[in-house]
Amino acid sequence: MIGPLWNKPRTTVLGLMSGTSLDGIDAAIVSIEGAGPKAKAELLHYYSAPYDEALRERLKELCTTQHSSVDLVCGMNAYLAGKFADACIEAVRGAGMEMDEIDLISSHGQTVWHIPEGDVHDPYKVRSTLQLGDLSVLAKQTGRPVVGDFRPADMAVGGQGAPLAPYGDLILFRHPSKGRLLQNIGGIGNCTALPPNAGPDDVFAFDTGPGNMVIDQTVYLLSEGKLAYDEGGAWAAQGTVDEALVSELLEHPYFTMEPPKSTGRELFGKAYAAEFVSRAGARGLGTSDMVATATAFTARTIAEGCKRFVFPRCSIDEVIVSGGGAHNRTLLNMLRQSLPKQTILTSGELGVSDDAKEAVIFALLGNDFMHGISNNLPSATGASRSTVMGKLALP
Amino acid sequence: MIGPLWNKPRTTVLGLMSGTSLDGIDAAIVSIEGAGPKAKAELLHYYSAPYDEALRERLKELCTTQHSSVDLVCGMNAYLAGKFADACIEAVRGAGMEMDEIDLISSHGQTVWHIPEGDVHDPYKVRSTLQLGDLSVLAKQTGRPVVGDFRPADMAVGGQGAPLAPYGDLILFRHPSKGRLLQNIGGIGNCTALPPNAGPDDVFAFDTGPGNMVIDQTVYLLSEGKLAYDEGGAWAAQGTVDEALVSELLEHPYFTMEPPKSTGRELFGKAYAAEFVSRAGARGLGTSDMVATATAFTARTIAEGCKRFVFPRCSIDEVIVSGGGAHNRTLLNMLRQSLPKQTILTSGELGVSDDAKEAVIFALLGNDFMHGISNNLPSATGASRSTVMGKLALP
Repeated sequence: MIGPLWNKPRTTVLGLMSGTSLDGIDAAIVSIEGAGPKAKAELLHYYSAPYDEALRERLKELCTTQHSSVDLVCGMNAYLAGKFADACIEAVRGAGMEMDEIDLISSHGQTVWHIPEGDVHDPYKVRSTLQLGDLSVLAKQTGRPVVGDFRPADMAVGGQGAPLAPYGDLILFRHPSKGRLLQNIGGIGNCTALPPNAGPDDVFAFDTGPGNMVIDQTVYLLSEGKLAYDEGGAWAAQGTVDEALVSELLEHPYFTMEPPKSTGRELFGKAYAAEFVSRAGARGLGTSDMVATATAFTARTIAEGCKRFVFPRCSIDEVIVSGGGAHNRTLLNMLRQSLPKQTILTSGELGVSDDAKEAVIFALLGNDFMHGISNNLPSATGASRSTVMGKLALP
Repeated sequence: MIGPLWNKPRTTVLGLMSGTSLDGIDAAIVSIEGAGPKAKAELLHYYSAPYDEALRERLKELCTTQHSSVDLVCGMNAYLAGKFADACIEAVRGAGMEMDEIDLISSHGQTVWHIPEGDVHDPYKVRSTLQLGDLSVLAKQTGRPVVGDFRPADMAVGGQGAPLAPYGDLILFRHPSKGRLLQNIGGIGNCTALPPNAGPDDVFAFDTGPGNMVIDQTVYLLSEGKLAYDEGGAWAAQGTVDEALVSELLEHPYFTMEPPKSTGRELFGKAYAAEFVSRAGARGLGTSDMVATATAFTARTIAEGCKRFVFPRCSIDEVIVSGGGAHNRTLLNMLRQSLPKQTILTSGELGVSDDAKEAVIFALLGNDFMHGISNNLPSATGASRSTVMGKLALP
């Protein structure tokens, strides 16, 4: 009825990602050949624009039930779109390109809430997800067509709207003979298992739990707001892990839930980190020990997720880490200790800058929308069928 | 670069409108010939689905800064889309049609907040508007393509995102020799002036102020929640208007602001009505007098708006009332007294069911999106240029 919106064998798409860690905006200019699971993607340019501290704090408030309100959601939706537009303009300039060489902008948006299963206590809080950064504002400010806001479409066909990254992981990282686990460590940690020579139905994925979220918030609290994250894992490296506390934390029911599953700031946000710091303090831990313990906890949630849900289903030779957590050397070392049989790499070592990876994936999803091709992966999200995710706004 | 998304000389579009009065959902199945300002529209079927009382109360809360939060915005966005989908299914059934005879659904969405000018005290509350009812959820549940969420695009090019109805008013109601004023009385009142034989640049429009909003909320408070509105204006008809209080209320600065201007629940919502009832009570007014005074105030805001901003620019022969307020006979009589030189009609008397009118207009706007045709009216919204409003989600 509505056919493909374009029929271009090769397109240039600017993908935008803003993760739950509230770091800022990742922009990837990608040359894409074809569409769908067999598309080929080449990263032309990557640009990153961190949120300033005031914006990050306001977004953290917006991600709480207590400090959010409809007027701030309304304003922030347009405000962030302006920030996304600025990032597009800077990315294009940095690439030495002109904006009209960009065929499409494809934007994930800033997740501010996610309800993977409806709230049984409130009939209006149905399965849903909310990404801000209005697509029309972005299209008008850049003069380019924009596709974005992908997740609600997957949820509308019974999926959890997450994780979406596995579809791009499959395109970018499948290997003819090696089993690979892609582990993204943003605010939330999520993994994608790619058996050797995987096809779309072989992929499976889930959110492992907190990524940098608990570490970052612990560091923020302990530094009294001076530090937003533990650069390179240096602070954690000075402490001693409280193994007993890590074991207790791993008893959270999320970690034994069967995939597909997804989580967010609702479970492991500010309140969770404050409770962690309070428990750790009561046990007499020093600040370095607390950061080390939060880091070890995060590494263990990933390793336990692998052992419980991935290794029984397929052999994994390489674990490829991406996202902000790939810069945390202490976290990577702890992961190596917990997974001694696998090679732990960063996606940058395989030619896809790990910071850029998720933005590249959203470029692919937007390109598929324009071709009218389904771009969700029911095996990862639990959706009842494949469907075309996204919404289109015109310049 | 992206051309028209379809090239159909005749389409069948289901338009959906949910106004700020929080009454419910209006659905209009419209046969449209052509596109743009010269389109011709024929209403095939109209269906209305009122919100139940519990939903309406929850939406009223969501439209306040105090009782709203991000999780409710998130959930309600998907919940309302489900309600919209149900209304589409019922409308199509009532028309004796099959869903696949509908080429497109075009949805306004439920406005829950509107910031016509950025908040000078909060850098994140920029010019913006928030309509709920996720387009992807609606598309997946109905199996039809959906266009909607029009207003942000106009605001992104400097407009107030409102009023949008004038564009449809022009198509439906322009007259070769008569000057016409279209006055919609929903939650908010908005008028469109169509000089004789008007073209797109001749139209001007603005929100006159509260429509039914103050009357409805007054009735709700005085009936202790038992009544949602004054049916037929019967309660108001029993009271005596406090003319001095009406004059005081008309001193609100909104009424002397030059158009283009738009307003919403932020100015004339719950808090405003509570203050009105309190002032009226202090003056010793009985309940019927209060409802009569709220009704007279509403009629006067419309008449004063005409006299101040419309009549100096063009002659008006007919005032055509639509929206829920067209059923309030007391309000219509008061309007006749205030505007003795004009004929006061309802849009139903001109062949377009007044309840259906706004839904018909959104059908036209969605059809234009698919043709790639600009569908805002800068002369009404104050936008710096004409542009294509809307976002598309695929089934």
